[in-house]
Amino acid sequence: MVAQQEAPQTQGALVIIGGAEDREGDCVVLREFVRRAGGVKAHIAVLTAATSMPREVGDDYIRVFERIGAEDVRVVDTEHPDDADRQEAVETIEQATGIFFTGGDQSRIIELVKGSRVDQAIRKRRAAGAVIGGTSAGAAMMPDTMIVEGDSTTNPRVDAVELGTGMGFLPGIAVDQHFSQRGRLGRLISALVQQPAILGIGIDENTAVIVEGDLFQVVGQGSVTVVDESETTHNNLAGLLKDEGLAICGVRLHILPHGYSFNFKTRQPLIPQIPTLSMAD
Amino acid sequence: MVAQQEAPQTQGALVIIGGAEDREGDCVVLREFVRRAGGVKAHIAVLTAATSMPREVGDDYIRVFERIGAEDVRVVDTEHPDDADRQEAVETIEQATGIFFTGGDQSRIIELVKGSRVDQAIRKRRAAGAVIGGTSAGAAMMPDTMIVEGDSTTNPRVDAVELGTGMGFLPGIAVDQHFSQRGRLGRLISALVQQPAILGIGIDENTAVIVEGDLFQVVGQGSVTVVDESETTHNNLAGLLKDEGLAICGVRLHILPHGYSFNFKTRQPLIPQIPTLSMAD
Repeated sequence: MVAQQEAPQTQGALVIIGGAEDREGDCVVLREFVRRAGGVKAHIAVLTAATSMPREVGDDYIRVFERIGAEDVRVVDTEHPDDADRQEAVETIEQATGIFFTGGDQSRIIELVKGSRVDQAIRKRRAAGAVIGGTSAGAAMMPDTMIVEGDSTTNPRVDAVELGTGMGFLPGIAVDQHFSQRGRLGRLISALVQQPAILGIGIDENTAVIVEGDLFQVVGQGSVTVVDESETTHNNLAGLLKDEGLAICGVRLHILPHGYSFNFKTRQPLIPQIPTLSMAD
Repeated sequence: MVAQQEAPQTQGALVIIGGAEDREGDCVVLREFVRRAGGVKAHIAVLTAATSMPREVGDDYIRVFERIGAEDVRVVDTEHPDDADRQEAVETIEQATGIFFTGGDQSRIIELVKGSRVDQAIRKRRAAGAVIGGTSAGAAMMPDTMIVEGDSTTNPRVDAVELGTGMGFLPGIAVDQHFSQRGRLGRLISALVQQPAILGIGIDENTAVIVEGDLFQVVGQGSVTVVDESETTHNNLAGLLKDEGLAICGVRLHILPHGYSFNFKTRQPLIPQIPTLSMAD
């Protein structure tokens, strides 16, 4: 399957990966990114802003994307504050059909890239159909409300999570990554209590959501946990001290493995065409 | 507050502790057990069946229960298969107002105690009002459907959890312990998919649910996560291979900290008399 290199008219997909994706074996998740970026005709730009080891991490992704079969893979390094305004970096983005953010620290992406000329070029390319991918920190930065950091394996508490501004590629959502592997339900629920209207998406390692239009599809080895707090009641936050437990009643949870889809607008999962069994039967 | 030593007419409470309860400081959780067992007039029997170190663990609980102020604390050791049929053990139970199961391996409790004369004596004492407490393995064994073992920090899968028969003090429930601390949502959800009618209760460390009649109340530092899968749909289990992810849509979740209660019959949380805020506001 060879995708067309001409820029399509619709906004490009997002490929949001929960970290620790396979880069040695079948590369199921990264293949989906490259496939949507044009397959063997893909031009990939790898942004290493999040990591403190840009050279090693960049080289690693060059290797895997070339092995999968992308035509051209370049690293856009933004170690220094002005790097993301350099003409060469902008031109690499302008030629990319797929733009990939590595893991590391999501705050570095915001500090080093947000508002830069590279950032502007990314948004233009996305509007023209280029795919934006990211793993771990590169996943966390996708929404407008970003989980900056927080405790794993905790019950929900006001101080369990720190929120900040993300890149805003996927508004109205909070993304958490390494989700099952690090036991992060408590911190994602804590984040949503502070931002009640948004939907929470917890992505497991070696697993991705691929966002196209109002839908996302799950790809990979683990699951995606959708946390919907739109109909919950909780205790009076103003009356809570920061280390006290949050009470949250009526959270709606969907857990979706490979092949399942979810509609952001209706907030409903789409069940694939295999027989399903009602638990009430 | 000194409870009466006369046996009340109603069945005794269950004090189900999620493990790692404080035994050095305020002992909030263990105090509730001793209080319900008669306070300073409590006669406590500590069952060490679950642990492979019965002497050390038994001595530890003797110390803490005596320090809290129980009048009499005795260890019922059942290291050997016949120990739970010994007359001395049965008599200790017959005089107990509180019966406490330590942590360890829940399967050992079933093997060594279930169906014994000590087991019969415990049920008689409970019917007469004695409190039954247990922590960790001593919590897991409370239901009729027991989580024997399973993976922590996993997404829901058919093979994530092994179920067995518990002591059956709390029917219709599955209990998981060390819940937030070990990221056990995936395994509790997996357990409930196999047993759709039952309600899941995930208890954090240093936290307890106190079951009295149709209600439980949360006590302690962490939270209790109630998992209700009664209205979920899931994928066709017969079509799944054991390591493939379960799809589960519409799980209802309540997370309840200290002071909150839950009604097993109505499956509804009871909000304490403090103002609550609807998230839809």
